[in-house]
Amino acid sequence: MCKGKRSWELCVDFHGHECLGLAIGYRQALRALELLGVEKAEDEELVAIVETDACGVDAVQVLTGCTLGKGNLIYKDAGKMALTLANRKTGQAVRLIKKDNVLPEDDHFRAVREKIDSDLATKDDWQEWAKIQKERVQQYLTLPPETIIEEKEVPMPQVPKARLFQTIICSACQEPFSEGKARVKDGQIVCSDCFQEYTRGW
Amino acid sequence: MCKGKRSWELCVDFHGHECLGLAIGYRQALRALELLGVEKAEDEELVAIVETDACGVDAVQVLTGCTLGKGNLIYKDAGKMALTLANRKTGQAVRLIKKDNVLPEDDHFRAVREKIDSDLATKDDWQEWAKIQKERVQQYLTLPPETIIEEKEVPMPQVPKARLFQTIICSACQEPFSEGKARVKDGQIVCSDCFQEYTRGW
Repeated sequence: MCKGKRSWELCVDFHGHECLGLAIGYRQALRALELLGVEKAEDEELVAIVETDACGVDAVQVLTGCTLGKGNLIYKDAGKMALTLANRKTGQAVRLIKKDNVLPEDDHFRAVREKIDSDLATKDDWQEWAKIQKERVQQYLTLPPETIIEEKEVPMPQVPKARLFQTIICSACQEPFSEGKARVKDGQIVCSDCFQEYTRGW
Repeated sequence: MCKGKRSWELCVDFHGHECLGLAIGYRQALRALELLGVEKAEDEELVAIVETDACGVDAVQVLTGCTLGKGNLIYKDAGKMALTLANRKTGQAVRLIKKDNVLPEDDHFRAVREKIDSDLATKDDWQEWAKIQKERVQQYLTLPPETIIEEKEVPMPQVPKARLFQTIICSACQEPFSEGKARVKDGQIVCSDCFQEYTRGW
């Protein structure tokens, strides 16, 4: 970790900006680490399953060390703001999901959002919207975990460790690629770019 | 960015450890930014297409600001160590792919790798392997770009900006989820966990 930077700032640096979605992932990732009593994974000792590809996933990557490139971040396409974090050493796993409607939406909030959604928003409306969002992020970062997160222990997910594949050369375009993605065309080994997919839609 | 840390260290912090795969993504991401004359994206002003989910993707996320959670990182499942980086403001895009067999593999390298692959490696073998890997990473980080990367301008990829969806509540499990993932069962709106997928394999 980058010493001297708070964990929230590290997430904002990585994501590029502050937003509520990032704050949701931030709170879930920190809470999951706390529940398992572990720190960020150097290698694949932790595994995370996220159920959305929204902003919060970036905080999960930064804080848990379960990243896209390391193969210990698994995507379940359910559209839920949920994180399962599992410790391969102990077999312990927890699933956390965002509670709905935690931050109140008053008349002012709704009025500004309506303008923003209408495509008629002025520069002032956008500034007001940014101010509201910033306040909501700060609020979300300080709420007690039990008010924003449903959490439970779950069975250890069976996720094999990431695999390495040989690199081979496509006989058509000559580009190197992973053997696991190879196809065959006219008796030659080719990459998926050089293979014409054939389907009748079934 | 975290001031005072070199960009390589930032990537290693995020990924959790040094490895050759990370170095490949690091060199490609820095070179792509240089070719486009841009810096890390705060929001979605850049878009990246990666053609593998291997280690290097983590360096791409850290350096370009094209991240999983921001929706400006697109996955093409080709198994190639390739990165397309595009600038939405100018319509300029470049594709970079790793050149194959850049680092020489001498007899010593092959002998140690054979032991590692055999599952009979001793602690000393593993230490020697780690030392070799560290040297190869350092070597890769210093090679001139033209020796390790094939690069070319490509047409601007047509990638729509990330979309937000309403959150709705599953009528069965009561969990909040994204409307875009909703299914219908017995006339009720349910999430994918509560919907029984039916298929005959076609």
